[in-house]
Amino acid sequence: MITFLNNFEASAPNNVVQRAFLSLQEEMQSEKVGYYKLPRRSLEVLEDAKDIDTSRFSQIVVIGIGGSSLGIKAIDSILRPVNKAAKEILFFENSDPLTILSQIQKIRPAEAAFFIISKSGSTIETTSIFKTLLHHFALDLDVKDNHRVFAITDNNSDLSKFALHHKLKTFYIPHNVGGRFSVLSAVGVVVLHFAGYDVEAILRGAANFIERFFDKKEKHLLEKAYFFYKNSKSLSINVLFSYADSLENFNKWYVQLWGESLGKIDVNGEHVGLTPIGIIGATDQHSFLQLIIEGQRDKTLTFIAVENFQDDIAIADITLEYIEKTNFVNGKNFSELINAQCKAVMQSVEEFGINTDFIKLDIINEENIGILIIYFELLTSLVGSMLKIDTYNQNGVECGKKILYSNLSKKV
Amino acid sequence: MITFLNNFEASAPNNVVQRAFLSLQEEMQSEKVGYYKLPRRSLEVLEDAKDIDTSRFSQIVVIGIGGSSLGIKAIDSILRPVNKAAKEILFFENSDPLTILSQIQKIRPAEAAFFIISKSGSTIETTSIFKTLLHHFALDLDVKDNHRVFAITDNNSDLSKFALHHKLKTFYIPHNVGGRFSVLSAVGVVVLHFAGYDVEAILRGAANFIERFFDKKEKHLLEKAYFFYKNSKSLSINVLFSYADSLENFNKWYVQLWGESLGKIDVNGEHVGLTPIGIIGATDQHSFLQLIIEGQRDKTLTFIAVENFQDDIAIADITLEYIEKTNFVNGKNFSELINAQCKAVMQSVEEFGINTDFIKLDIINEENIGILIIYFELLTSLVGSMLKIDTYNQNGVECGKKILYSNLSKKV
Repeated sequence: MITFLNNFEASAPNNVVQRAFLSLQEEMQSEKVGYYKLPRRSLEVLEDAKDIDTSRFSQIVVIGIGGSSLGIKAIDSILRPVNKAAKEILFFENSDPLTILSQIQKIRPAEAAFFIISKSGSTIETTSIFKTLLHHFALDLDVKDNHRVFAITDNNSDLSKFALHHKLKTFYIPHNVGGRFSVLSAVGVVVLHFAGYDVEAILRGAANFIERFFDKKEKHLLEKAYFFYKNSKSLSINVLFSYADSLENFNKWYVQLWGESLGKIDVNGEHVGLTPIGIIGATDQHSFLQLIIEGQRDKTLTFIAVENFQDDIAIADITLEYIEKTNFVNGKNFSELINAQCKAVMQSVEEFGINTDFIKLDIINEENIGILIIYFELLTSLVGSMLKIDTYNQNGVECGKKILYSNLSKKV
Repeated sequence: MITFLNNFEASAPNNVVQRAFLSLQEEMQSEKVGYYKLPRRSLEVLEDAKDIDTSRFSQIVVIGIGGSSLGIKAIDSILRPVNKAAKEILFFENSDPLTILSQIQKIRPAEAAFFIISKSGSTIETTSIFKTLLHHFALDLDVKDNHRVFAITDNNSDLSKFALHHKLKTFYIPHNVGGRFSVLSAVGVVVLHFAGYDVEAILRGAANFIERFFDKKEKHLLEKAYFFYKNSKSLSINVLFSYADSLENFNKWYVQLWGESLGKIDVNGEHVGLTPIGIIGATDQHSFLQLIIEGQRDKTLTFIAVENFQDDIAIADITLEYIEKTNFVNGKNFSELINAQCKAVMQSVEEFGINTDFIKLDIINEENIGILIIYFELLTSLVGSMLKIDTYNQNGVECGKKILYSNLSKKV
């Protein structure tokens, strides 16, 4: 269960909110935007994945970047500390040579399942790393290693044609699902199933929440979207303050989702959008909190906390001579300390007049992750609709790709 | 060697710049601010650390948070991939129970050196974790384990008194050096020396740069500070775009330094300051770049690139059927690809009229890290001086600490 609490003043229902709600409904019904239906549709993909004997693999190698890795990483990082039996997932994302060299050494090629994931099918980091791994491990795509290399991509993409050519088992990302909204498609579903996570429960959490949303039972989401939209000029930064180390990759997933979806030129040609920042509590109380409180007042704060960490350790009931003033936490569990820190900081920033909202997970489990994912996706779509932008494209990044091609091609 | 290149239009020398330069000079000479002299003074601390036989330790456990860990982590992360013999450093920072439980399992108590680091001496996360480790490993501070537990703190802090009580070897942080400026004090110097890094070279890099700065030979720094100050309202976000995975913790160190120093209420009672964001290239081209280009135009970009990664791997010269269009990178080294990506993105955002500057490390080594550290510290001091704020305090975070104490104490 997740509790959502908006601490800012909510506006009365209005036309903007109503229009945004209807536009999401229309996006879903018209199939213009596909992620709304993934929680149900991906059950089929999961069935397909279950036909594969995954017991042959003790390790999963994911070659993907951006939307093809961030979501998987986010869910894996959250669930792993409480699912110690999950199979190792090794991520190859960046074109950094030192990372690639060090990750390659961790691969046990005879026990590994390799996933190449790219929506477009020709992402330069992904294809370059894939080629290099093929070469390094002398993988034979047509006979010996054919059963251990999988592709996840759009139907009809270059990668899908390549995979078909080698008869590689391929899972498809629906055309109407963008990379940053794809974690509940084959991208996340297949890889996380291979790792041993309960993917049904993730999808169930998401499905239930999205149903409740379209049944108008999650009004807080509309209120939050409207608040963000209305204040998007003066409160242009949303800080996601997550009080659990395992949420760091979730923060990164959120940064991509929010930044790439909402950083846009609107219908009037104006640069709009909100800047996302992810930080971790309590650590970043010692790093970013001063700026939030005394710096420019351009930020809203979203706190995420976990009530029950499932495992815990008590602060030893020891007195350190001369440091007796820290004894007030003695004997308490660390989960109690970190949650009290979250509460204290939230209370403190509110006293300074900073707008916050609070997302409380009762426990870390698959169902809650599913809710969290779909919650942020719906929030993004709502704000995008209110801002009158195309939430689902990313035209801004094309220019750099062209320059890269032109710069590297001309060097002979 | 590091090359600094400001791609924005520099203003002519002016009074604001001159005053800021003089104020830093005065801070240094009056000893009001102590970090300027650390590159020379810490040589003594290093000599002191060298008297200890570190060969007894194969592992270093650091208990510290914020300024007591971020700098060490930053340097360790950058240097480790090219210093494979460095001893493992385990960090205990956050009050997250799952992280603490998992880190505890990695400790080999008989081979470990334990450092408790806290400037004030009573940081709640640090003391709580320290107590818990003492208890868990039944460490005997007075006899058996006395030689393996070290304190780094202010002279006369509660922690220093505790350490004296148990005759623990203690290294002192000068009173006039704030936590986020302390990485070149005992905090970084002793721990990194224990790990086996060439700390002299780090200090030498920093000392040379600071000397050149005060000799007015690093004018680009004054120009950049002035540009950031002058545009601090309209370009309120600085994005540090680092093109190497190993710079992620450096980004975090920078975020604390910049955010906590510059997020302030100025002499006129106004909330001022610049918001720092750290991202990693090429990965975050797939996450944050769209927002930079099409979103609100409130950002400057600082690119960091590494020319020579010291180790490298070539992109295999293989043609993937149907994906031939990626062949333009075949046979090139990954270092060439990532640096070409950096260049292409910089060129692309400039074409969109976004202001950038570029920091190029010829190689990853201790000397360059020393330069990088002191460069950002000086930049922070300059901008703070121009903004007419107290760069070195952090009053904003005190309120949350009081609420925490009051909330947890009253529960019986």
